[in-house]
Amino acid sequence: MSRYVSEPLVQRLPAYYRHMKELEAQGVTEITSRNLGERMQLNPCQIRQDINVIEGAGKQGFGYSVKELKEHLQKIMGLDQHRRIIVLGRGRTGQEIANHPAFADEGFPVVALFDLDPGHLAQSTAAVPVYPEAELETRVPDLGAKIAVLALPTEKAQEMLNRLYDLGIRAIWSFSRADLHPPRDMAVVNWHLYDTLQILSYRISQMEEESPRR
Amino acid sequence: MSRYVSEPLVQRLPAYYRHMKELEAQGVTEITSRNLGERMQLNPCQIRQDINVIEGAGKQGFGYSVKELKEHLQKIMGLDQHRRIIVLGRGRTGQEIANHPAFADEGFPVVALFDLDPGHLAQSTAAVPVYPEAELETRVPDLGAKIAVLALPTEKAQEMLNRLYDLGIRAIWSFSRADLHPPRDMAVVNWHLYDTLQILSYRISQMEEESPRR
Repeated sequence: MSRYVSEPLVQRLPAYYRHMKELEAQGVTEITSRNLGERMQLNPCQIRQDINVIEGAGKQGFGYSVKELKEHLQKIMGLDQHRRIIVLGRGRTGQEIANHPAFADEGFPVVALFDLDPGHLAQSTAAVPVYPEAELETRVPDLGAKIAVLALPTEKAQEMLNRLYDLGIRAIWSFSRADLHPPRDMAVVNWHLYDTLQILSYRISQMEEESPRR
Repeated sequence: MSRYVSEPLVQRLPAYYRHMKELEAQGVTEITSRNLGERMQLNPCQIRQDINVIEGAGKQGFGYSVKELKEHLQKIMGLDQHRRIIVLGRGRTGQEIANHPAFADEGFPVVALFDLDPGHLAQSTAAVPVYPEAELETRVPDLGAKIAVLALPTEKAQEMLNRLYDLGIRAIWSFSRADLHPPRDMAVVNWHLYDTLQILSYRISQMEEESPRR
């Protein structure tokens, strides 16, 4: 299977998948590009182009099969693989992610939490096994995890990323406020609380400049 | 003040600000584009171009003043304004954000939480006042909030966005899994837990296709 998925389409894949699941739950089996476009607020031409890429072939017809499209999306995104997650760091964010009840239902089970502060280990309230950071190298190979959540102090984040890379982890979801520099074949998504607020604040400033209050 | 800040630079502004604060804390008062480039893993040419935009003027010399640059960044991002936040929805995410201890220190105080389920009101553990959703229109004008956090069920998110827009809110940080359609003069940042995981899963699939395991 080989196809070029543009970056904007990558960002839209989860929305397509979500809409297919909703349609299926509503008992809808076929949908036209026009109706799907209305649902997703996208132009029908865009929908057809996207679906040609998703299904890997052009198609003439009067509707798309919801079930087929959903299966294609699952396959492209590897959602049939049950990507296991490990969480590093046991502050508020680490605990929140580790204890999130619905990740497993969505195919992303959290299988372990690694704590940088061994003193915490005794008072664990996590729903998953908690190991000290020092056991990363011995535990990760057996855990079969593909994704690591970094909820660590800034200064530890890059070092951890490097160690995880050496252990075969290829996807990082980081809540650390570090400028991470991953190897080329490692995917990183950064979620920075303050950066997000600062960017929103910037947007407000811009809008106020463009239309000052009287 | 008028300058064109490209979208990639908008995304970098928080990192510049963070580095200026760190340098200041370390007692550094001046920094060259080369040293800053090494810190931020950016080319010195990029640094100079960015700073010309941030400072609103070209500059010849042997170093940038950390204090001045920090003040410019604060001004551009409106961080001297204390942007107040309201939170809508009191599930896990809503509570987490409302009780986050450090937002106020960063200039983003959470001033109220609006609960869609009035039955919850009695058992509030929030550190901020909790009001029923029905009081949105009477409370928000007095709260002086600029940013709203949406931690709501998907089906309520767009309706709330519309009501908040009418109340003068111009920035939304959404954790709802809805495809939001904001007016042109409203900024929205979406944080979707599952979408993020699905995109990471997609990246893993891509990498495995490119270099299959033997």
